[in-house]
Amino acid sequence: MTVTLLVCSTCRAGEPVPEGTLPAGTRLVAALEALGPVPGVTLRPVECLSACSQGCAVALSAPGRWSYVYGRMSEADAPQILAGAAAYAAAPDGIVPWRERPEIFRKQSLARIPPIGEPT
Amino acid sequence: MTVTLLVCSTCRAGEPVPEGTLPAGTRLVAALEALGPVPGVTLRPVECLSACSQGCAVALSAPGRWSYVYGRMSEADAPQILAGAAAYAAAPDGIVPWRERPEIFRKQSLARIPPIGEPT
Repeated sequence: MTVTLLVCSTCRAGEPVPEGTLPAGTRLVAALEALGPVPGVTLRPVECLSACSQGCAVALSAPGRWSYVYGRMSEADAPQILAGAAAYAAAPDGIVPWRERPEIFRKQSLARIPPIGEPT
Repeated sequence: MTVTLLVCSTCRAGEPVPEGTLPAGTRLVAALEALGPVPGVTLRPVECLSACSQGCAVALSAPGRWSYVYGRMSEADAPQILAGAAAYAAAPDGIVPWRERPEIFRKQSLARIPPIGEPT
């Protein structure tokens, strides 16, 4: 299944953004793009995931699956973020076994939301 | 449209749960249920929204709409939570004008996720 990796491209991560520099979220998007596309993962920059105090924020979602939001991400985390996104895409139900999740996903969860419109 | 109000029923909100007492999340669910159903809003208790350090957590979602997650909620917030859920249900696109959102939603956002599977 193709899943979506949402990245807040406007996040300042609590830092000032001096003229001539880019916000942390924009730099994170660039770092993810520079690592090249990951099969089954569509990178989608979005304006604000409303997790500003815990930015940079990223989210994983796909139809019929739990969505996950992670915070306090930086450019240096780009390889782990893509590895975690690939694992999410590869898991038949999107639920990656705990030990197989990147450490930043295990420790920096902001929230998860169950599949939308599914019965309890 | 009928929207879903997800409430983490297992949340301890960082408190110990002595024997014979109920976790904060369970008490929040009970407080919401006691206020009676809200037209257009389905209350759905879930086990863990993975926002444990910011609990109690609730989320609003519906097909084709942005999902919202809010944290640091307690029983005392039940009326505002239901008012916010009703506003979300009533808004044609689920996007409630900022000033019409309950204060706890304006100040205690944990994250939002765009409609799943929608194009950018």
